[in-house]
Amino acid sequence: MGKIPVGVLGATGMVGQQYLALLARHPWFEAVYVAASPRSAGKLYREAVFGKWQHAASYDAERQCWDYGGTYAPQVGDLTVEDAGNVEKAAELSRKGKLSFVFSALEMDKDAVKALEERYAAAGIPVVSNAQANRWTEDVPMLIPEVNWAHAGIIPAQRKNRGWDKGFIVVKPNCSIQSYMIPLFALLDKGYELKRVFVTTMQAVSGAGFPGVPSLNVLDNVVPFIGGEEEKTEQEPLKIFGRLQDGKIVNAASPVIAAHCNRVPVTDGHTACVSVEFGAKKPGIDEVKSIWRAFQSYPQEHMLAMAPEHPVIIREEADRPQPRKDRLMEKGMAVTVGRVRPCPLFDIRFVGLSHNTVRGAAGGGVLNAELLKEMGYIG
Amino acid sequence: MGKIPVGVLGATGMVGQQYLALLARHPWFEAVYVAASPRSAGKLYREAVFGKWQHAASYDAERQCWDYGGTYAPQVGDLTVEDAGNVEKAAELSRKGKLSFVFSALEMDKDAVKALEERYAAAGIPVVSNAQANRWTEDVPMLIPEVNWAHAGIIPAQRKNRGWDKGFIVVKPNCSIQSYMIPLFALLDKGYELKRVFVTTMQAVSGAGFPGVPSLNVLDNVVPFIGGEEEKTEQEPLKIFGRLQDGKIVNAASPVIAAHCNRVPVTDGHTACVSVEFGAKKPGIDEVKSIWRAFQSYPQEHMLAMAPEHPVIIREEADRPQPRKDRLMEKGMAVTVGRVRPCPLFDIRFVGLSHNTVRGAAGGGVLNAELLKEMGYIG
Amino acid sequence: MGKIPVGVLGATGMVGQQYLALLARHPWFEAVYVAASPRSAGKLYREAVFGKWQHAASYDAERQCWDYGGTYAPQVGDLTVEDAGNVEKAAELSRKGKLSFVFSALEMDKDAVKALEERYAAAGIPVVSNAQANRWTEDVPMLIPEVNWAHAGIIPAQRKNRGWDKGFIVVKPNCSIQSYMIPLFALLDKGYELKRVFVTTMQAVSGAGFPGVPSLNVLDNVVPFIGGEEEKTEQEPLKIFGRLQDGKIVNAASPVIAAHCNRVPVTDGHTACVSVEFGAKKPGIDEVKSIWRAFQSYPQEHMLAMAPEHPVIIREEADRPQPRKDRLMEKGMAVTVGRVRPCPLFDIRFVGLSHNTVRGAAGGGVLNAELLKEMGYIG
Amino acid sequence: MGKIPVGVLGATGMVGQQYLALLARHPWFEAVYVAASPRSAGKLYREAVFGKWQHAASYDAERQCWDYGGTYAPQVGDLTVEDAGNVEKAAELSRKGKLSFVFSALEMDKDAVKALEERYAAAGIPVVSNAQANRWTEDVPMLIPEVNWAHAGIIPAQRKNRGWDKGFIVVKPNCSIQSYMIPLFALLDKGYELKRVFVTTMQAVSGAGFPGVPSLNVLDNVVPFIGGEEEKTEQEPLKIFGRLQDGKIVNAASPVIAAHCNRVPVTDGHTACVSVEFGAKKPGIDEVKSIWRAFQSYPQEHMLAMAPEHPVIIREEADRPQPRKDRLMEKGMAVTVGRVRPCPLFDIRFVGLSHNTVRGAAGGGVLNAELLKEMGYIG
Repeated sequence: MGKIPVGVLGATGMVGQQYLALLARHPWFEAVYVAASPRSAGKLYREAVFGKWQHAASYDAERQCWDYGGTYAPQVGDLTVEDAGNVEKAAELSRKGKLSFVFSALEMDKDAVKALEERYAAAGIPVVSNAQANRWTEDVPMLIPEVNWAHAGIIPAQRKNRGWDKGFIVVKPNCSIQSYMIPLFALLDKGYELKRVFVTTMQAVSGAGFPGVPSLNVLDNVVPFIGGEEEKTEQEPLKIFGRLQDGKIVNAASPVIAAHCNRVPVTDGHTACVSVEFGAKKPGIDEVKSIWRAFQSYPQEHMLAMAPEHPVIIREEADRPQPRKDRLMEKGMAVTVGRVRPCPLFDIRFVGLSHNTVRGAAGGGVLNAELLKEMGYIG
Repeated sequence: MGKIPVGVLGATGMVGQQYLALLARHPWFEAVYVAASPRSAGKLYREAVFGKWQHAASYDAERQCWDYGGTYAPQVGDLTVEDAGNVEKAAELSRKGKLSFVFSALEMDKDAVKALEERYAAAGIPVVSNAQANRWTEDVPMLIPEVNWAHAGIIPAQRKNRGWDKGFIVVKPNCSIQSYMIPLFALLDKGYELKRVFVTTMQAVSGAGFPGVPSLNVLDNVVPFIGGEEEKTEQEPLKIFGRLQDGKIVNAASPVIAAHCNRVPVTDGHTACVSVEFGAKKPGIDEVKSIWRAFQSYPQEHMLAMAPEHPVIIREEADRPQPRKDRLMEKGMAVTVGRVRPCPLFDIRFVGLSHNTVRGAAGGGVLNAELLKEMGYIG
Repeated sequence: MGKIPVGVLGATGMVGQQYLALLARHPWFEAVYVAASPRSAGKLYREAVFGKWQHAASYDAERQCWDYGGTYAPQVGDLTVEDAGNVEKAAELSRKGKLSFVFSALEMDKDAVKALEERYAAAGIPVVSNAQANRWTEDVPMLIPEVNWAHAGIIPAQRKNRGWDKGFIVVKPNCSIQSYMIPLFALLDKGYELKRVFVTTMQAVSGAGFPGVPSLNVLDNVVPFIGGEEEKTEQEPLKIFGRLQDGKIVNAASPVIAAHCNRVPVTDGHTACVSVEFGAKKPGIDEVKSIWRAFQSYPQEHMLAMAPEHPVIIREEADRPQPRKDRLMEKGMAVTVGRVRPCPLFDIRFVGLSHNTVRGAAGGGVLNAELLKEMGYIG
Repeated sequence: MGKIPVGVLGATGMVGQQYLALLARHPWFEAVYVAASPRSAGKLYREAVFGKWQHAASYDAERQCWDYGGTYAPQVGDLTVEDAGNVEKAAELSRKGKLSFVFSALEMDKDAVKALEERYAAAGIPVVSNAQANRWTEDVPMLIPEVNWAHAGIIPAQRKNRGWDKGFIVVKPNCSIQSYMIPLFALLDKGYELKRVFVTTMQAVSGAGFPGVPSLNVLDNVVPFIGGEEEKTEQEPLKIFGRLQDGKIVNAASPVIAAHCNRVPVTDGHTACVSVEFGAKKPGIDEVKSIWRAFQSYPQEHMLAMAPEHPVIIREEADRPQPRKDRLMEKGMAVTVGRVRPCPLFDIRFVGLSHNTVRGAAGGGVLNAELLKEMGYIG
């Protein structure tokens, strides 16, 4: 049986290129449609990205590893880039069964992305989005498959709300929260209430896309500010920890989070220093570690293709995790934690790390699509 | 009248070189004695440091500015390096009135430094130390002149305890706390009790001395651990905020501090993200800023030579302070703060920055000596 | 007597800000006119640059040192930014004696800069330009005051060619050649013909302006290409080494230069590895060093305000010069050389370093203006 | 049939760890013996390297890719580290057929390494060395398999000279020359005489091992000097291009090479700017590229396990190769070249790049061993 044909919106940008690298030998999906701005439309994909900064290594899914020797499947290079605004072209392919769904890595302004993603969905094409435009849309689930896979269950209600037949929209959260959400959830899931969380992030420059952060701002420097990032870091977890009720996602009331977000001179990998206060019931340090070591969820149980075997990896060395050394653990899909120890003010503290352009961007998007396929929403 | 003749122990190391740069044209002090390990002893100072990594810019005190064109006064280059262990040599100079006191930038192990500093003090030579060896010695004050200048008043008791005549020891605290201690004290001083403080530091590699941190550990990386640093960051403030009583320093009971200390790819300048919980009486954001803007203390009032005119500088831009852009404010002696804003968990939060090898090392040491001179303990 | 009133075109850009920092306490010049794009026009200067990346430290001319505490004179902050395209406004000031000349740090496209600079000159306002637009204009001198100060003598011919009364245009060369042109000239000046020169540059990111080089291109990376840079590096020296003849600058025929230009992760300071083949008469290594040590030219002899006392500084350590350690020698105006040694293929080789945004940009421009004032062309 | 049992001397150092990463799933070799300094001897390998800086990604030979999830085969972690000086232990294993040969990644001083490698060889154990100790030993071949594989033919003569039965020593050259030796050889091999070569290298910090280069020397900096590197860069190619004659390697007389070697803030990957002068017969740019594209040699023809399919990869983009983007091409074993263009002084110029700790260290060593096995000298 053939692979599921998929498209990438914003295919020539940094995240778009990473989607195509991940899809190059994906066991279930095959990129057949690439769309971008009118400026790139009409060119062959290989021409549109030639000489562009190529950040991505290709993930070689057959060999289950990263291959720095190529960045997209050869046949993708020969695809003609479509105008992402020409939804009808995609709709026609969809009607003929030649396009199942699209990944959205659009880099336009928020309102334009929101409108365009809705047009795709209205045209019957599911949108698995990396953009922030629809994160706070009430009936759009913001998925981390290990945490709130069940939120995908809102899709029928979303379709009904909008009058959409086959299309829908799902999103992934901001990359800054990936390095501690799975560890926090693993504890919550074992009955340890999360009351308050202090987070200080040290984020990689690739999180700002390309060209992104000017080198004069990060060489020999730290920028203690990322526009909008602290707000996202403090609020998105509440939606992700929320519950489905009457076709809506009702946000969780806790934990209350305070975030300081910083940009540091690191290419890839967001690091977070985290202190956590639990409710009345408090786990010991050993218990915390043992919960993390054992943690498995839907993606592992259903053996999704991109799922890390160990979603949370614990390093026992005093000085880990470190972005350059740990970001590619489990092909960039695991969270690495270390320095698990008591906190003088709250209960425990630790350092978390995740790869912001794999788990935090294209890799997270592909895992979302795998979840949706496994749950029967696409395919 | 001539300048006060001073010595530098550990004169060939990184901090030692910085002392000599700062002393090159100091209005009150003149370096006349340089001591180091037996390996360097007997060489001319210029030979002992030739080809060594020279980190320091010379502070040109006459012109009140930094001069990258030279790193020590010409006559210092011609001094013969003494063996730091040969205390008798220094004592002889002291007896002849040719050496008033010494700065200690010794880089030996802690016990050896403690013993050696005590031998100098016992020989009648005051020691203004940059080392951590005596920081927790009960009758040794750990000084930040803007904060606890009055702790110098313990010196007579210290002399009495030890049976020392003219000698004594004072120390400065760890560089990691310099970026927020003065701002916190300014608030405390206005009657705002400090209950709890969260601090995450992003520290420069020069804090580890030279050779210090291997480049493979910091290029494209963050190391979320600095040995012993979190303990110092959490405890030293309590001694500094303590009070003199019966010839002892009684530590303050608050604030309780939780620190995450990180090493980042920055040459100079420690940045700290700080959240503060006050007691019942809480200042508003504008009040905090106005207290900081107005803050002056003993060093400013007595016009100490190295004292920054504005000990706390506030930046209003959204993305400041930044180490490369702000570390040299007020010749590296000011603390720059920014992003003063409410904290979702505590009361306020802000980012603080100070130059770790100026205010946090040699500059802080020289300011301590200026304080002691002004108070009559040396000179 | 008052200072000479000057203007800065492109005043809000990176180089423009650096001009204003250098002019903040310049002994001869005073900034009275700031112009930029229509977007900034009408704002106060302090508002137009607030929150903009401020790279420059202010050069404190009275104290002859760098001051990181401010970046322009207070009164400049209160100037209203003019539209640089509104030449008439500047011309009016000029007619009233309130504007003597302008520095051009315009960042528009080459043809637009050329046209605009010519309009200022035609309006009677001398233009001391940092832009490349007029570098190859036949009657426009490309000045390095220590090398070809005499080329300023073409100004009368330039005026005559263009029918300009008081206005004229001079330019400075590309920043990439500053690190070896003065050393090469010092040898040429002593009668050592330069036949062939190999140069490999390792250039700082500030050379590309702001935002300039994306951080993802330089963190943990080298980019072995800078558009147009190798051509400039190979050709501009021939004009600078040329001779005035019949109101034209006749290019020198040698040396033939081959350049490899690279971008490296350095904020400021261009480094060049240079191998030189002389004509029949060849100096020994000691002779080369002694020529460089003794080298003085017009700016030193006439004590121009920005002129380095020692235009060429030699470091004898095996591993110098280094950009972070040596770029600010002589307030960023000196060239530092090291590793002077025989070359297995040519005659000698060495490493040269200069500060690309001081000597290589605003500082070089101000020195050009000082030269022109001393020679009587402005004032 | 089982794998060939091999050992690693210096197994706990940076290069030693990389050997074990590469051997983790090597199709022909299996690490069974790990030796290091007496300090590590007696510990389990996993304990000896725990918490040590782990630079290596493991090369997963079964899946033919890099795996960042582990750094050595599980059974290696359980090996007891032997004292490398205890040659008798290795000899005993060798006599029993349980150890075929050793890789040497010893980090002692040169004379000690030379003596120890000779003791292993004398004890009947072939030594495939990464160290420089024996590079200029007359009867020891310095191998780059694509270039001078035939030099392995000196082994019988070496054995005879030394009176060794089964043991012998081969070495690999310095990492700094790997980025252009294969491209140069490919041209030489087609009959284009190489007369003169200018090389400027920009070398990664990992080339200095660990702890290696202090971070204060490379952050925001370039160090234009690497001890001994220019001499190696200028001379080693002459031995590699030499010919076997009467049991000796007779060095080539050309090309004459002039090298400037620099350390830049890059973790891995040496970049070289190269200009080449040919003899009377000169290839055009297209001819050069076509020779490189087609180049294949012994390792490719015999399908050695670590051999890159394309030893020379050409990038056509204007700004490539770049270390961070191209160093891992062909699993770090290929040389990537770009910017092939005419040189104003010589004939052609280009930029070459190779991964200094894969091709330039452990990967090159393993490829040497594969060559020796294929040629029948080990196994």
